[in-house]
Amino acid sequence: MSEDHTHTAPPVAELANATLNDGGSTVMRAHFSQRVPIRSILGRPDGGAGLAGQKVTVGGWVKTGREQGKGTFAFLELNDGSCPANLQVIVEASVADLGPLVPTGTCVSVSGELKTPPEGTKQKIELRVDRVIELGPVDPAKYPLPKTRLTLEFLRDFVHLRPRTNTISAVARIRNALAYATHTFFQQHGFLYVHTPIITTSDCEGAGEMFQVTTLISEAEKVEKELKENPSPSEADIEAAKLAVQEKGEVVKKLKSDKASKEEISAAVAVLNKAKEDLSKLEERAKLQPGLPKKDGKIDYSRDFFARQAFLTVSGQLQVESFACALSSVYTFGPTFRAEHSHTSRHLAEFWMVEPEIAFADLQDDMNCAEAYVKFLCQWLLDNCYDDMEFMAKNFDKGAIDRLKMVASTPFVRITYSEAVDILKQVTDKKFENKVEWGIDLASEHERYLTEVKYKKPVIVYNYPKGIKAFYMKVNDDGETVAAMDVLVPKVGELIGGSQREERYDVIQKRILDMGLPLEPYEWYLDLRRYGTVKHSGFGLGFERMILFATGIDNIRDVIPFPRYPGRADL
Amino acid sequence: MSEDHTHTAPPVAELANATLNDGGSTVMRAHFSQRVPIRSILGRPDGGAGLAGQKVTVGGWVKTGREQGKGTFAFLELNDGSCPANLQVIVEASVADLGPLVPTGTCVSVSGELKTPPEGTKQKIELRVDRVIELGPVDPAKYPLPKTRLTLEFLRDFVHLRPRTNTISAVARIRNALAYATHTFFQQHGFLYVHTPIITTSDCEGAGEMFQVTTLISEAEKVEKELKENPSPSEADIEAAKLAVQEKGEVVKKLKSDKASKEEISAAVAVLNKAKEDLSKLEERAKLQPGLPKKDGKIDYSRDFFARQAFLTVSGQLQVESFACALSSVYTFGPTFRAEHSHTSRHLAEFWMVEPEIAFADLQDDMNCAEAYVKFLCQWLLDNCYDDMEFMAKNFDKGAIDRLKMVASTPFVRITYSEAVDILKQVTDKKFENKVEWGIDLASEHERYLTEVKYKKPVIVYNYPKGIKAFYMKVNDDGETVAAMDVLVPKVGELIGGSQREERYDVIQKRILDMGLPLEPYEWYLDLRRYGTVKHSGFGLGFERMILFATGIDNIRDVIPFPRYPGRADL
Repeated sequence: MSEDHTHTAPPVAELANATLNDGGSTVMRAHFSQRVPIRSILGRPDGGAGLAGQKVTVGGWVKTGREQGKGTFAFLELNDGSCPANLQVIVEASVADLGPLVPTGTCVSVSGELKTPPEGTKQKIELRVDRVIELGPVDPAKYPLPKTRLTLEFLRDFVHLRPRTNTISAVARIRNALAYATHTFFQQHGFLYVHTPIITTSDCEGAGEMFQVTTLISEAEKVEKELKENPSPSEADIEAAKLAVQEKGEVVKKLKSDKASKEEISAAVAVLNKAKEDLSKLEERAKLQPGLPKKDGKIDYSRDFFARQAFLTVSGQLQVESFACALSSVYTFGPTFRAEHSHTSRHLAEFWMVEPEIAFADLQDDMNCAEAYVKFLCQWLLDNCYDDMEFMAKNFDKGAIDRLKMVASTPFVRITYSEAVDILKQVTDKKFENKVEWGIDLASEHERYLTEVKYKKPVIVYNYPKGIKAFYMKVNDDGETVAAMDVLVPKVGELIGGSQREERYDVIQKRILDMGLPLEPYEWYLDLRRYGTVKHSGFGLGFERMILFATGIDNIRDVIPFPRYPGRADL
Repeated sequence: MSEDHTHTAPPVAELANATLNDGGSTVMRAHFSQRVPIRSILGRPDGGAGLAGQKVTVGGWVKTGREQGKGTFAFLELNDGSCPANLQVIVEASVADLGPLVPTGTCVSVSGELKTPPEGTKQKIELRVDRVIELGPVDPAKYPLPKTRLTLEFLRDFVHLRPRTNTISAVARIRNALAYATHTFFQQHGFLYVHTPIITTSDCEGAGEMFQVTTLISEAEKVEKELKENPSPSEADIEAAKLAVQEKGEVVKKLKSDKASKEEISAAVAVLNKAKEDLSKLEERAKLQPGLPKKDGKIDYSRDFFARQAFLTVSGQLQVESFACALSSVYTFGPTFRAEHSHTSRHLAEFWMVEPEIAFADLQDDMNCAEAYVKFLCQWLLDNCYDDMEFMAKNFDKGAIDRLKMVASTPFVRITYSEAVDILKQVTDKKFENKVEWGIDLASEHERYLTEVKYKKPVIVYNYPKGIKAFYMKVNDDGETVAAMDVLVPKVGELIGGSQREERYDVIQKRILDMGLPLEPYEWYLDLRRYGTVKHSGFGLGFERMILFATGIDNIRDVIPFPRYPGRADL
């Protein structure tokens, strides 16, 4: 029990900020590891040149490796995921067996000295290894991701290995940057992050396209297994048990009328009680039914985990409104779900949404917020992910960087839905598949025409016909339109959808009923209008849409780490 | 089609940074709204005194209101959720009808001038209203949250209104601060945020406690409804249809052998084809069975949405490891689920976890990271939420602020499991319910003794017996223990659990088999060891546990916006 047991850690500053010093140049060690991130070498303005002479340890995976000089040394291109660039690493045969180092996919941790490469080479700095600390080998005959260029489609069969590819790791860094930019933007603007629920009993709007969350099936399977091992009692079994109770009861009765001894009677009562217990156990077991529990011909959800039917959320909006109507400026950022059987390049069954909600804000405020947010995201990528964006521009979408710059700096066009329809009706240079008429929902071709052809910049369309929009959107004074808005951007079309919410109790109640929806599930939502109602507005941004927009990648399955779609949910 | 349609927005700097200026004092307007957040008035070091004379608009909900001076004016305590403090607002009867303004829960947006209150009052500043802009009234007879102090338990029946209470709004701000602190910590330390999947087909460990995600039930209900409206064809129906096909076939045959005209034959063939089509439709419909689809007596999951059984994740660890084995330092922060029927104050069916994973890092690195992270969170709350922490200390846990200060500044004690057992065995001042012996899993009482009684500071226990820990933890050289660690803190006990992961292919494969688990679902996980394996470590922090620790709140249902537990999933 002596204090000798305890070993305290170094102070936190030391834990978190280890550095290597050499003259004026400093290279940051990775936190909580001995390695130096390759980004902190190659990501410097001088490309790492100023670090020549420093001793460092790096770790990563070999992109390409080759033995040279008749096997006297090896060149390795090493990547650790901290940036798109690889560090050139040179290992001499005297330091380690070179054969296991060179296959693509090999993991190594090595230490050595950073050196200026011979003149005329591309690199600004390279690492001469004096020790191979760790080695995670690869059998090239078996490794599923050889050096050759692989299609994104092929890589979808290897979601656990594809982060090691240039494209998927660049997308991961861009996705990370956009997520942190999102939090930073809203925090800087005084919004509180609210975790809305994933499991919901409330969104009844699109129940047909919702995933059900249940424990009923596993419980039914348990019962069926139990019944197989130990079948339900037959009626004869129960009759026999009833008879036993009757007989034992008569024995007790007889003993009592015979004035038998207390001991004799209580022994017989004990036997009777045992028989009664056996009977009730049998009757209980007889109630066990295979299959889902039913009541009045329907599934009995009172026996499900939450005592009612539960689903995966399709949006956190309604719930986050309850926080906006108390904390004023809030946002949610989390996974949402659609059980749609669509196999397109734009749909996922599980995807992430950013949904701010602002009290004391009207549609203009909402549009201002959406525009500022999208601009902030674009500028953030230019400031923090330029190397990854260069990779995207080179390999996927030449215009990707210019698009970010344009959106970050150009005021968004704002037109009403009616104006948009007028414009589209007068289009002569393109034939639309879907006819344009006041009252239709704009199709993707219309949206993209407005943003890509007509204005060549982001466009916000607002004041949509109420017939094509949700019940919770504020009815405008014209009685025909609602205060809804969509932000359209080149490359993906609709990026954001939002609205001022209907805060008038009578109006929203009538809208729910007019749409043929039941009131009961919305009573809590109506309470927000019943008690201290407030003008408020919000919008939703499909996070993967934003990544498609930023990167120029075509298929949404390649911009989320673990894509879920009909027939597939790997890992 | 003229450019007149377009109205462009003000530049982004203007959108986002509106300020009101008056002499040397500046008050920030809320972003994307006309209101000034009350925090930007009362949260100033001078409590707002320096803003006297400024014209502002504020919005919020009335905490308490009363008419005074025989109805000539009203005092309102107004809260907008931006901080725990209320702004004192004074409205004269000449400005508005006072009656509807004073009930608790009323929402108002008002403009006026900030004034220095009479000497001797508590406030440093108050608002004299010259205009009531908006009013969301409350009928006090119906409002479920009157001014009287309500229990947290009572409030759980009003999850949509409870954010308007002092406690729940303070918890919401603390939760928001901890979430942003989490992202800030990991981003500053070079970690990439990875969205691990919510729907998983992979975590097979605790399948008994997992929620199933399915569309089979809704599809079965659809079929049953359809069969009720349009019953399955009888065998006689099908026989009749078969007979029709046979007859029509014979007609064709006869026409052909009779060398009938082309027209006649093709008409008869058309009739035959129609009959065949009818038959196949009937046969298709006959296959429709009520209930879940079955194959070989079991549920046929090939017909579920993902073509296999799917669940809600219990942890993102295994999946995030695939990104650590490519991008080196990563973390996930998202919802996780347990279908446990536990009704305790420490369990939820849906809760949030923070899970970093670090390549090229061993257990020491892991402990360093965990310690630095927890310290960072505590310091962040002291720096950013002091007013909310004061509220918590006053109302829930006197020691809450001191605890944060202690944890932020004290090196964590680190002892091995064996040392912990030795210490606990020698305890004489307390009788444990669970006997202490090498090999047992430490119970909550043991953990809390170590951190609350023995050391009175955070304690990291590491190197646990391998028999009580998961298969993926690295086996130490002694062959008996694994490189696992738990961080114990006063008030809640275990806050973090982590480990170095077993990176040796042969060892981890054997561990899976030894535990009686199937290899097939883990093949992808084994691939991470097969190809370029790397030493790596990580941990998980239960986010709600951290909030309980910080706030001193007792029940976990009160520190998550929308609690889910057996029998309850409101909204």
